[in-house]
Order: sequence, then C-alpha cells, then structure tokens
Amino acid sequence: MPRTRLYRDGKLAKEDFPAADISDYVTDPAAVVWLDLCPPEGDDLQLIEEEFGLHVLALEDAVHPGQRPKLDHYGSHLFLSCYAVADPGTPVDPGAPGTLAAHELAVFVTRNALITVRKSTGFDIERVTARWDELANLAECGVGFLLYGLLDCIVDSYFTVTERLDERVDALEDKLFDESRDQIRAVQRESFLVRKDLMRLRRIVLPMREVVNELLRHDSPLVGPTLMPYFQDVYDHLLRVSEQVDSLRDMVATMLEANLTIQGNRLNTIMKKVTSWAAIIAVPTAVTGFYGQNVPYPGFGRLSGLLTSSAIILIGVVVLYWVFRRKDWL
Amino acid sequence: MPRTRLYRDGKLAKEDFPAADISDYVTDPAAVVWLDLCPPEGDDLQLIEEEFGLHVLALEDAVHPGQRPKLDHYGSHLFLSCYAVADPGTPVDPGAPGTLAAHELAVFVTRNALITVRKSTGFDIERVTARWDELANLAECGVGFLLYGLLDCIVDSYFTVTERLDERVDALEDKLFDESRDQIRAVQRESFLVRKDLMRLRRIVLPMREVVNELLRHDSPLVGPTLMPYFQDVYDHLLRVSEQVDSLRDMVATMLEANLTIQGNRLNTIMKKVTSWAAIIAVPTAVTGFYGQNVPYPGFGRLSGLLTSSAIILIGVVVLYWVFRRKDWL
Amino acid sequence: MPRTRLYRDGKLAKEDFPAADISDYVTDPAAVVWLDLCPPEGDDLQLIEEEFGLHVLALEDAVHPGQRPKLDHYGSHLFLSCYAVADPGTPVDPGAPGTLAAHELAVFVTRNALITVRKSTGFDIERVTARWDELANLAECGVGFLLYGLLDCIVDSYFTVTERLDERVDALEDKLFDESRDQIRAVQRESFLVRKDLMRLRRIVLPMREVVNELLRHDSPLVGPTLMPYFQDVYDHLLRVSEQVDSLRDMVATMLEANLTIQGNRLNTIMKKVTSWAAIIAVPTAVTGFYGQNVPYPGFGRLSGLLTSSAIILIGVVVLYWVFRRKDWL
Amino acid sequence: MPRTRLYRDGKLAKEDFPAADISDYVTDPAAVVWLDLCPPEGDDLQLIEEEFGLHVLALEDAVHPGQRPKLDHYGSHLFLSCYAVADPGTPVDPGAPGTLAAHELAVFVTRNALITVRKSTGFDIERVTARWDELANLAECGVGFLLYGLLDCIVDSYFTVTERLDERVDALEDKLFDESRDQIRAVQRESFLVRKDLMRLRRIVLPMREVVNELLRHDSPLVGPTLMPYFQDVYDHLLRVSEQVDSLRDMVATMLEANLTIQGNRLNTIMKKVTSWAAIIAVPTAVTGFYGQNVPYPGFGRLSGLLTSSAIILIGVVVLYWVFRRKDWL
Amino acid sequence: MPRTRLYRDGKLAKEDFPAADISDYVTDPAAVVWLDLCPPEGDDLQLIEEEFGLHVLALEDAVHPGQRPKLDHYGSHLFLSCYAVADPGTPVDPGAPGTLAAHELAVFVTRNALITVRKSTGFDIERVTARWDELANLAECGVGFLLYGLLDCIVDSYFTVTERLDERVDALEDKLFDESRDQIRAVQRESFLVRKDLMRLRRIVLPMREVVNELLRHDSPLVGPTLMPYFQDVYDHLLRVSEQVDSLRDMVATMLEANLTIQGNRLNTIMKKVTSWAAIIAVPTAVTGFYGQNVPYPGFGRLSGLLTSSAIILIGVVVLYWVFRRKDWL
Ligand SMILES: [Mg+2]
Ligand SMILES: [Mg+2]
Ligand SMILES: [Mg+2]
Ligand SMILES: [Mg+2]
Ligand SMILES: [Mg+2]
Ligand SMILES: [Mg+2]
Ligand SMILES: [Mg+2]
Ligand SMILES: [Mg+2]
Ligand SMILES: [Mg+2]
Ligand SMILES: [Mg+2]
Ligand SMILES: [Mg+2]
Ligand SMILES: [Mg+2]
Ligand SMILES: [Mg+2]
Ligand SMILES: [Mg+2]
Ligand SMILES: [Mg+2]
Ligand SMILES: [Mg+2]
Ligand SMILES: [Mg+2]
Ligand SMILES: [Mg+2]
Ligand SMILES: [Mg+2]
Ligand SMILES: [Mg+2]
Ligand SMILES: [Mg+2]
Ligand SMILES: [Mg+2]
Ligand SMILES: [Mg+2]
Ligand SMILES: [Mg+2]
Ligand SMILES: [Mg+2]
Ligand SMILES: [Mg+2]
Ligand SMILES: [Mg+2]
Ligand SMILES: [Mg+2]
Ligand SMILES: [Mg+2]
Ligand SMILES: [Mg+2]
Ligand SMILES: [Mg+2]
Repeated sequence: MPRTRLYRDGKLAKEDFPAADISDYVTDPAAVVWLDLCPPEGDDLQLIEEEFGLHVLALEDAVHPGQRPKLDHYGSHLFLSCYAVADPGTPVDPGAPGTLAAHELAVFVTRNALITVRKSTGFDIERVTARWDELANLAECGVGFLLYGLLDCIVDSYFTVTERLDERVDALEDKLFDESRDQIRAVQRESFLVRKDLMRLRRIVLPMREVVNELLRHDSPLVGPTLMPYFQDVYDHLLRVSEQVDSLRDMVATMLEANLTIQGNRLNTIMKKVTSWAAIIAVPTAVTGFYGQNVPYPGFGRLSGLLTSSAIILIGVVVLYWVFRRKDWL
Repeated sequence: MPRTRLYRDGKLAKEDFPAADISDYVTDPAAVVWLDLCPPEGDDLQLIEEEFGLHVLALEDAVHPGQRPKLDHYGSHLFLSCYAVADPGTPVDPGAPGTLAAHELAVFVTRNALITVRKSTGFDIERVTARWDELANLAECGVGFLLYGLLDCIVDSYFTVTERLDERVDALEDKLFDESRDQIRAVQRESFLVRKDLMRLRRIVLPMREVVNELLRHDSPLVGPTLMPYFQDVYDHLLRVSEQVDSLRDMVATMLEANLTIQGNRLNTIMKKVTSWAAIIAVPTAVTGFYGQNVPYPGFGRLSGLLTSSAIILIGVVVLYWVFRRKDWL
Repeated sequence: MPRTRLYRDGKLAKEDFPAADISDYVTDPAAVVWLDLCPPEGDDLQLIEEEFGLHVLALEDAVHPGQRPKLDHYGSHLFLSCYAVADPGTPVDPGAPGTLAAHELAVFVTRNALITVRKSTGFDIERVTARWDELANLAECGVGFLLYGLLDCIVDSYFTVTERLDERVDALEDKLFDESRDQIRAVQRESFLVRKDLMRLRRIVLPMREVVNELLRHDSPLVGPTLMPYFQDVYDHLLRVSEQVDSLRDMVATMLEANLTIQGNRLNTIMKKVTSWAAIIAVPTAVTGFYGQNVPYPGFGRLSGLLTSSAIILIGVVVLYWVFRRKDWL
Repeated sequence: MPRTRLYRDGKLAKEDFPAADISDYVTDPAAVVWLDLCPPEGDDLQLIEEEFGLHVLALEDAVHPGQRPKLDHYGSHLFLSCYAVADPGTPVDPGAPGTLAAHELAVFVTRNALITVRKSTGFDIERVTARWDELANLAECGVGFLLYGLLDCIVDSYFTVTERLDERVDALEDKLFDESRDQIRAVQRESFLVRKDLMRLRRIVLPMREVVNELLRHDSPLVGPTLMPYFQDVYDHLLRVSEQVDSLRDMVATMLEANLTIQGNRLNTIMKKVTSWAAIIAVPTAVTGFYGQNVPYPGFGRLSGLLTSSAIILIGVVVLYWVFRRKDWL
Repeated sequence: MPRTRLYRDGKLAKEDFPAADISDYVTDPAAVVWLDLCPPEGDDLQLIEEEFGLHVLALEDAVHPGQRPKLDHYGSHLFLSCYAVADPGTPVDPGAPGTLAAHELAVFVTRNALITVRKSTGFDIERVTARWDELANLAECGVGFLLYGLLDCIVDSYFTVTERLDERVDALEDKLFDESRDQIRAVQRESFLVRKDLMRLRRIVLPMREVVNELLRHDSPLVGPTLMPYFQDVYDHLLRVSEQVDSLRDMVATMLEANLTIQGNRLNTIMKKVTSWAAIIAVPTAVTGFYGQNVPYPGFGRLSGLLTSSAIILIGVVVLYWVFRRKDWL
C-alpha cells in the first residue's frame, strides 16, 4: 500500500490515508501532500499522471531503471532522479562484484506535492519520515521542506558508505608493505573492488552535486530564505563526500602503484636466493666431482681422502651460507 | 528508389511518391516533406541542391565520408552530420579490427523538409519511420518532429552498443584474476579491442551531445515548446550514454593495470618453482656424487652403501618437496 | 577558561575577562570582541548562539569535526572552517600513518566580534595574539584586523610544514639512484608517506585559497581599503604554498617512477650475475666429469692426469671470472 | 624571382609582373595584389615594409624561423604565422628523427594585398594558385578570397600527413600481438617515432584552430557573408584533423601500454622454458650419477645395468618432454 | 654602488649619479628615473620606501627570496616579482641538483620610476642597459619603455636555457635505443635531471605569462599604443617558450616510458642467454655422466670410448651453439 502524508498549515494533518483521497487535497492551497510508491503497481502511475498533470517523459524515466542523477524542469513540476546507497558489508566471495548497493529513486515535485517512486525496496523510507518529524518546525515552508528532508537522508547514506570505504582503504594500507604472496594478492583484489565501488559512488555523488546546486541557483519558490541555509548545508555535505571519494581514489591509485614496486622487490629477493642456492649447490658438486676422478689425487682410495672431501664439502657449504646470510642475500 | 513522405496539417498524406514530385510540395506552407537517399545516385544531389537551395559546401560534406558529428548553420537550412552504430557480435578472428560498425548519415533540415543521406545501407531507416508512426500525435510540430524521431533512433543505437560493450567488460572482469597464461592473453587482446571500440564510440557520442545541446539552446522555430522536452530527453540519453562509455573506459583501464600486476604474480610464482626444483634436483646430484668418489666411504663397494645412498636420496627429495609444498613455494 | 579580548576605538581595552561579560560589549558600536573556546564546553555554544544570533547549522559545523575548509554566509554573520597544520617530525615507526597533524578551527565573524572554536588544543592561539600585538596600528580596522591576524598565523603554519616536506623530498632524492635493496625500500615507504602528507596538505590549502579569494572579491565592510593589501598578501602566500605543494607532488611522482626503473636495473644486474656464476660453475663440473669417465684418457690413473685436470679447472675458472669482470657482468 | 598576381574587379588581371610594379596597384581601390617571397632576398622585406607600412616586429617574425602558429593584429594589417606539413615517407635509418617535414610560412594581410613569405622552398605554392583558379567566382570577395585559398591548401596538407600517420598506426597495430623479439622492438621504435610526429603535428594544428576561429569571430571586412561558410569549412577541417590526431595519439599510447604487457608475456614464457629444461636435464644427471656410484647396485658392471640406465634416461626425458608440452610449458 | 639613470623628454640625461639625488628628479614630470639595487644594502629600501611611497608588504616581498612570479597592484605603484634564468652547463657530478640557475628580481614601477632589486648578482644588468640604448627611439614612452627592455631581456634568458635543454633532450634521444647498461642508466639519470629543470623552468615561465597578460589587458598609461605591440611581442615569446617547455616535458616523459620497455628487452635478452647456456652446459655433463657409469657401455675402459665421448661432447656443444646463434637466442 502506498505511504501518504498530508500537511495543512505547517502541521501534519493525516498519515497513510488511501491514495485515492489525494484528489481531495491537491486543490487546497493550504495543503501539502506526500505520496510514496514502492514499487509503483498497476495503474498507480497513470493515476498520478492525471491527478498531478505529470509529463509522459518524466513518467517513463520514473519507470525505467538506470537513469542518471538529474533534475528535469517540466512546466508545472520538477522531476528528480537520484540514488541512495548502502554497504552490505564485505562480500563472502572475494570475486563477487563490488559491494556497493545503489537504490534508485524518482521524485516528482509539484507546487504542493512530493511524490517519491522507489524502484526497489532497499531504501528505508522510515528514516525520511523520522527526519521530517524531527524538523517539524520547518514544515510551514511547504513542499521544499519535504524535499530537504528527503535529500538530507539520501546524502547521509553517502556518508555512511564513504566511511565504510575509508575503513577498507585503511585496512588495505596496513597490509601494503607486507611482501608475502597472499598479502600482495589480497591487496590487488581488494583494491580492485574498492576502486570499483568508488567509481560507482562517484558517478552517483557528482551529478547529485549539480542537482542541488541547480536548486540553489534558480530563484524558485521551492527554496525560500528560511530553507536556503538548509539546502546549502546539503550542498556542502555533497562537496565533502565528493572530496572524500576523490581522496580515497587517490589513495587506492597510490597503493596500486606501490603494489607494483613491492612485487618488484619480491622478484628481486627471489632472484637473489636462486643465485645463492645455485652457488651453494655448486660446492658439493664440484668437490665430489673432483674426488670421483680416476686419477691419483692425494688420498685416492684412502680414508684420508674421504675425510678431506667431506671436510671441504662441509666447510664450503657452511662458509657460503654464512656469507650470503651476512650479505642479506639469503 | 529514394524513400519519401509527405505530411500535411500534421497528418501523413503520402508515402513513397516519386522524388520528382517534391517540387510540388515544397512551396506549400502546410506541407512537410521527407526525402531519403541511400546512397545518393547520379544527379540526386544536384536535384536537391536546386530544389532546396542547399549550399555547395554542405553537399560536399554529404558526399565525402568521415565527417565528424556536427551541426552547420547555412542561411536557409541546417546541415547535420552524425553516425548510427551497430555491433555485429564478437569477431571470429580475435586479431580482427574492433567490432563497432558506424553508419554515417548526412541530414539537411530546411523550413519544411528533412533530407536524409545515408552513406551506407547499414542503418535501418524503417526503424525511423516506425518511430514517426508511433508518435503520430506530435506530427503537427512540423519538421522538428521528423528530426526528433530520427535522433531518437540514432541515440537508441548508442544504447544497444553500449550495453553490448558492458557485457564484454563484465566477461573480461570475470577472467581478470585467473593467472593462467591463456586467460592473461585473452584479457589483453579483448581489453585492447574493447578499448578501441569505446574510443570510437566516444568520438561519435561526445560531439553528438554538442549537436543536440545547440539545437536546445538556440531559439529556433524547429524546436517549439511542445518538442522541447523531447529534445531534452534525447540530450539526457546522450549524457547517459557518454557517462556509461566513460565508466567502461575507466573499468578497462583499471583492468589493464590489474593485468600487469597479475603478470607479476605469475612471474613470481614461476621463479619460486624454479628455485624449489633446483634445490630438489640438487639432492640426488650431491648424494650420487658422494657415492661416486674413489675413496673408502662407509659402504664402499657394498650393498649397505647402495641402501644408504638410496635412502638418503629418497628422504632428501621427499622432505624438500614437503617443505616447499608447506611454504607454498611449489 | 575561554580566552577573551576587547578592543575599543582601535585600542586593546581588556583581556581575558569572563565570557559572561560579553553581552555588555556586543551592543557597543565602538567595541570589537574576541572570544576563544577550546574546546567548547557545556553551554558555551548555546550562550554564543543566543548572544550573537548564530545559525543552528553553523553551530553544528562548529561542533562536528571533519568539515572541509569553507566560508558560509549567514545573514548576520560569516562561518569559516579551516585547518592549521603542524609536523611532529619523522615517526619512529615507519609504518605509522602520515606525520602531518591538522588542527581544525571553526570561526564566527559578526559585525564586531570574532569567535574562534578550536576543536583540539593542537593549535597555539598565543601566536595569534602575539601577531595582533605586533600589528596594533591596524587594530582600528575592526574585526577584519582580528581575522587577518588569525589567517596569517594559519597560513604561516602551512609554510612551516611545506618546508619540512621539502626537506624530506630532498633527502629522498639523495637516496634515489642508490641500488641497494634497503635504499630502494626506504625510498618506496618514505615516498608513500610523503605523498600522503602532500595529498592531505593539498586538500587543506586549496579550498583555503577559495575562502580567502571570496573574502577579497565581495565588497564586504570586513576588508576595507587599508586591510585589502594584507588579505591579498595572505592570498599570495596561499598561492605560493599550493605551488610548492604541487611541485613537491611532481617530484615525488617522478621519483616513484624513477624507482621502478632502478628496480629494473637491479633485476638486470642480478640476472647477469646468475648467468655468469652458472657458467663458472660449469667449468669444474665439466672437467671433473670428464676425468671421472671410465675410459683411458691421457693421464688416466696417473699423477699427470691429476695435474692436468686441476690446471684446467683453475685456468677455466680464473679466465671466466676475469672475462665477466671485464664485461661488467660480475 | 618573386611570384605576383593582380586581381581587378574580381578578375585575374596580371600574373608574375615585377614586384617593383606593386606600388602602382596598392592605391587602386579595385585592385587586389598577391606577392610571394621565397625566401625573401636582399631588400625584399625593406621594400614591402615601406610599400605596405608593415610593423617592424611583424617583419622580424617573418624572418626568424620557429614562430608558433598565430595571428597578430597590427593597426593596418594582420600578420599570420603558420606551417604546411609533408611526409617524405618512412626514413631509411629507423633511428633517424621523425619523418614529419614542416614548412613555415609568414603571411601579411592588408586591406587589398596578401604577402606570403615562405621560409623554405618545401611548400608548393603552385597548389595555391591552382586552388585560386578553381574558385575564380569567389575572387570578387577580395583579399579574403586569397587568404581562404591559401589556408585551404595548408589544411589539406594536414589531412595528407594525418592519413599517412594513420597508415603507420594501422601497420603497428597489425604487429602488436606478435611476441617475437624483433616485432616487439620494431613496435617500440616505430611507436616512438609516430608519437613524436603526432606531437609535432598537434602543436602545428591546435594553435591553427585558434587562428581560424579568431578570423571567424571578429567582424572584419576580410571575411564577409559570402566567404563565411568557406572559412567555417576550413575551421571544421581543422577540428577534424585535430580529432584524428588525438585519436591516433590515444591509439599509440594504448599500444605502448599493450607492448609492456606483451613483454611480460614473453618473459613468463621464457621462464617456463627455463624451468622445463632444467627438469629435463636433471633426469640423465640423476640417473648417470646413480649408475656411477661405487656400490653394488643391480646391474653393477654388467650389460643389464647399461640397458637399464639407458632405458630410464630415455623414458624419463621423453615423459617429461611430453608432460611439459601438454601443459603448454614448453 | 646602486646603478642609476635619468631620462628627460625621452633622452638619456644622466647615468650612475648618486641614489641620494633621486629626490631631485621624482617630482619633475618630464623625468623618468631608474634605480638598481644589487643587493639592497643598509637603509636602501627604507630610503626608496620614503622617496617613492612604496607599500610595506611590497618591500617585504622585495627582500624575502622565493616569491612566485607575480604582479601586485598597490595604489600608486606596481610590484613585479620575476626570475631570470641561466644554464651553467652540465654539472661535473651527475648526482648534483638540476643545473638551472634562477636569479630572482623584484621590480617597483611608479608613475615615472623603475626600481630593480636584484636578490643575487647572477643576472647581468648590463644586457638591460644595452637593450635600452638599442631602442632609444622608444624612450619617450616613459617608464613603460624601461619595463619593456627589462622584460625582453628576462624572456631572452628563457629562450637561451630552453635551447640548451632542447640539446640535452636531443642527446638523450640519440642514446635511447642503446641497450647497454651504462646507456640505460645515463638516460635515467639525465632524464631525471632534465625533467627537474623543465619543472622548475615551467614554474617560472607560466606565471610570467599571466603577469605580461595582465599588463596587456588593463588599460594602464604604462603601456600606450606605441608600446602595445612590443609588450604583445614579449607575451608571444612567453607563449613560445612555454610551448617548447611543454613539448620537451612530453619528450622526456615519452623517453622515460620507452626506457622502461628497453629495460624489459634487456631482461628478455639475458633470460634467453641463461636458457641457452644452461642447455649447452648440460651436454658435457650428460655425456661425461654417462661415460662415468660403472657399467660395460661400448668402449668401457678403451680408447674408442674416450674418442666417442669427446666427439659427442664437441659436436653437441658446437651444434647447440650454432642453433642458438641462428635463432638469435645467444
Ligand atoms: Mg548523470
Ligand atoms: Mg554525471
Ligand atoms: Mg570540492
Ligand atoms: Mg587520504
Ligand atoms: Mg596519488
Ligand atoms: Mg601511473
Ligand atoms: Mg567533431
Ligand atoms: Mg568531437
Ligand atoms: Mg553527464
Ligand atoms: Mg563501472
Ligand atoms: Mg580507474
Ligand atoms: Mg590509471
Ligand atoms: Mg571543499
Ligand atoms: Mg577542497
Ligand atoms: Mg598559482
Ligand atoms: Mg621541484
Ligand atoms: Mg612528473
Ligand atoms: Mg603556438
Ligand atoms: Mg602546445
Ligand atoms: Mg598554441
Ligand atoms: Mg572537436
Ligand atoms: Mg582510433
Ligand atoms: Mg588509451
Ligand atoms: Mg598508464
Ligand atoms: Mg606563481
Ligand atoms: Mg606551478
Ligand atoms: Mg603560478
Ligand atoms: Mg600557447
Ligand atoms: Mg618534440
Ligand atoms: Mg608523451
Ligand atoms: Mg606513465
């Protein structure tokens, strides 16, 4: 069942009344109406098209998923497309796609009504109604107040996710200079996933900045002098989020570059070990090769020969091992 | 034979009449004419030059292939150059050039006529006529309506191709962390081809954005208040496509960088195996070298010597193999 | 206890009087008041909210840490968010986070009052009061003079830290072409830390530039003709710092790229040594292998054979060693 | 001898008359004069300085080579500096500098005269006179017509060279995934040379775009309504060339990155071969080592021993070779 | 002793008179004065502060080194900060800091006086006075003439250094595809030094462009119609230098990337040699291993065995060496 609210003269007058009653209120100049469709069913959209005189292209965008965040101006109403985000935690399978969940919303703003169309149930609309109730003293500002409460909740979801991504980047950084193979791979995969999430978040937040900026710039009756600082605050939060996202992207790019040099270190280390072991192995080979000669070397066929060769092998191996250890080659 | 249409007072009056009849309609203020040349033959262009008073430079661009997407203003008419795209599927030969097919169109827009010149037959003009028939109620907007239907179909072709490229990028991503040689090479080649297609698509879509933006900005009678939201919708779709293309380019660039680090992993792994096998091989060499010495070691010339040497070889090899396995070096 | 100052007619009239007395002065047109809260306690903020009529959103930003540097305009007052920085020296643990310490300040500027809210005690406010006393002859410019003194001290902190970072970059550069393993790693880790500090400093300095630029552009009574060159000087210093930061970032990026090529040099060098030692080791193996054959080679079972084989081994090893040395392969 | 032309009332009146006669025509309002100096000799420049009242700084730039493409406005005349380009084909010596040849021109444009100063003989002025003759019907547009013909020829030279560079990039692309050493090096060197040519061409074309844009923007009598579409066409061609150049630069950059990953493939392949051969070589070493022991293994000193050892060697080598082949390691 | 000049009515009236006499001339409307301080001593600056009414912040910048190139407007005078550059040649020690020497100048421009403050003696002021004498006919343009002569000399110093850097880049390019170790390292180090010089030069030239652009834009009496083309010429030279610097930076970046691929070539080459030598060494090892077995192989204990084994060793080594040579593996 669609959620509804009716504000009259800046007071919450009714809640969750049937959507069909809306036609009684839309002509009342003192009334402000909210209607939430999640997801829109049957003839819901046709109903609001007629009731509020919405443009057919705006309704199309409200139905088709994957719109970019934007603000469209139609004669009598605005159409807002945006995304709330959520982070369901680290995926169990590290090969799974990025963990960022984006919930698309379509919003119609008329002179005295706010219609929210949630394309999926992921975004919790109760947080928005709670925010409206907290700020009840601004309710007299009309539909702009409802829009502010909604935008504020959406932008808060960006902060939550950005903080979680920041933690993931910090965790990556702690593992960065560890040269074990598993850590190098963990950094690679996780960096890739974080980078993907950051790319997606960025594409949600950046155009949102433009949307709010447009609301601020145009002298619409929607945002009056009382609400202006509140919308500016939302804009400021969007700037803050986008700066954090850019900062995290820089960090991840830096870490991936560092990862390359650390792989280089590891390869250098392994090459040195190969060299060292090759030299150590050469000692018994050369010595036993010598004593295997069919020529009368000192100790040929005698116990003294055995002792000498064994001693040379032992001393050679031990000395080389000690030298390489000291040179930090082994 | 050229395709033609005649709209009169917002109604489709005639279809596929001979091109020679056009001179009868162009002077009628209530008539809107469409003429399609694919490809222009013989004196087709000379005919429209005279009939519609087109500029010689515009006609030159309509003939020569490889124009950039653009909108040129000549006194009495507009000249539009653009590309529809198509994806003929993955090429059989992976070394073949990028799979993106671009079909160039030249369009003349006069006060009451739309002339489309298709430089190749690749673009299906039936989709455009079908779109016009769907939107028949907008036909009274005149030549702007015809232009909108055409642009809408062209931009739809961008979405189709972008979706296909998105699938190819997803497929690449699934193979990304596989360290087998064939997968690494497949990712490289396919990334290269996808990147090339994205580069080409970008060069088609980005200037198209400017073209439609220019149509929106200038208060021409072409785009009146009724058509304005429809042209804005086309512009919005172009923004969406160009964002997706940029997003895919970022993904491909990220994957190519990741590919480099994965090659590094692979090299590290191989180096470790070389080291391990060198150590394992050294065991029998050293032991049989010892027992081949011509000195009276314990068991010289006796069965006990054979058993001892065989036991040492076996134990040494097994122990080393087990140690390297545990250290994940083998 | 909060710090306070009262200027009257351009003279310092009182210092460190109780905050509660402020209400006596704010209505006096000849008085300019400074109040410092560090950190704000209990009802400090509620008190200034009432006394100075500050906006609730500005007060929120003054409490919550992590604001971006910005200048917000509220009807009767300005809200400034900024950061002073400090460098506590090289960290003991090289894996520790970047060494740059940022101290956040919130500043309210009314017609005749400057209220500084320090979110941590790290920034030494005594430097600001000392600066005000040095420039006492500008005190008659009112609250703009107080703001200038504060900004000047904050921007000086950027210079100090930038100089320290410049020293760290110089130290890195000296180690750059050293191919020892420890130097390569030291360069990597330190570059990473310096880059992180530079990224943070940049995010503090760049928006600060915009803040001061905004103070210069708007013809506010805050910055009159006398103070204008002083604020321009602060702006110039911010340009200088941001150029130095960009220059250092370029240097670090260049050094990290150079580091990659130096790792490549090192790997090449090691590979050549492996090749050389493999060749040298092959000499005794081949010679003693030959003399271990059960066939009557010249000297079989005779002293002459021993001498010959020993001579060949010795000569072979020495000649190869000398050749590789000359070719700079060893 | 300098080339000359005289147009009177839109008709070619005289050609190749002595430069000294020019003073007779410059004061005639119906005359348009062209003078070409290649290269300027003796007092040529002093003569035109006096005759046309040219500025001393413009004359300096007309003499000194290496000017950037630009349009300078002097009170009574324009000074244009530009470059025609040519591609003399692939250099014989692949280490030779980039093959792009740039021919610098200095052009003075007065009210009724065009003076071209070619700093080298490389640019064929006959193509310009031929173009003028083709467009004879535009000759009545005055000196702007002469300038258009010149610019059109110069921009055509950019197309020719860009096409040649496109062919070279295509040739590079065909060799890209070939992993043989010679192809990898050929791609590297040729990429480097193509990139250098593209860099040079870009620095010639991009500022030229600004030059023509400036001619279009300013309402000078030079470019009247008849010539406007022609100059716009030149501008459009410059946009097209610069887009192609940027596209080729992207391709070359992409190929150089791909080249790096292909080198990595090659190194991986070689490392696998080293590992495989080391294992195969180990088989006879181990077997003959065993049979060389001075202990009574089965077959010691008997034919059965020889056959057994030979069989083990043969089987071991063949099996390993077959296994490595199947695993694609060899 | 400070250098001085007095121009009266466009003629050089006095030279090198005592600085103390300046107060006699500054009030004379027909007089233009030049004063050079290098470096400013004792109360020099206090004297000019009083005599010319200079702002205290401008004087501070004239004393403190490390100002960025800039133009500050103070009510009655301009303050210009800039750098002349010089190239003292290739450093003896390749590890030494970049060879670019920058000489900082502070310049005050009043209505009728030019005061140059050289912070070091590196910049040769005689070149400026010589330039003034060359252009004596412009002297009647007043203080703008003096400023032009100075700027022209400074910008000439940029050309000289850019040419020297161009030579160094050309020298680098010649060594680029040489794969010897010493050349690779030389390219690396020299590239690093050149890049550093280019970065420094860029930071000197780019803001200078803005400085001259500002002089051109503002309709100050400093640059009248006669001087305008001369200042535009300086601006043009600055554009040319900055383009060359950017071009050289591109070249160096390209070369450093190429260097990485060349290192890769070298590593591939070495790996192939390792493989080849390992195979060659395996031949005598395997053969002598076989003939060292204590089993009755054909030729056991007989001369025929010796000859056979020697022949196999010789043939095997020669054949492998020849095969590897042909395959270009050795
Ligand atoms: Mg968007
Ligand atoms: Mg966007
Ligand atoms: Mg920002
Ligand atoms: Mg950060
Ligand atoms: Mg970074
Ligand atoms: Mg990079
Ligand atoms: Mg284009
Ligand atoms: Mg374009
Ligand atoms: Mg967009
Ligand atoms: Mg994506
Ligand atoms: Mg990316
Ligand atoms: Mg990148
Ligand atoms: Mg910000
Ligand atoms: Mg910022
Ligand atoms: Mg700057
Ligand atoms: Mg630097
Ligand atoms: Mg750099
Ligand atoms: Mg230029
Ligand atoms: Mg350039
Ligand atoms: Mg340019
Ligand atoms: Mg373009
Ligand atoms: Mg391309
Ligand atoms: Mg690319
Ligand atoms: Mg890259
Ligand atoms: Mg600067
Ligand atoms: Mg800079
Ligand atoms: Mg600057
Ligand atoms: Mg330029
Ligand atoms: Mg160049
Ligand atoms: Mg480059
Ligand atoms: Mg790079």
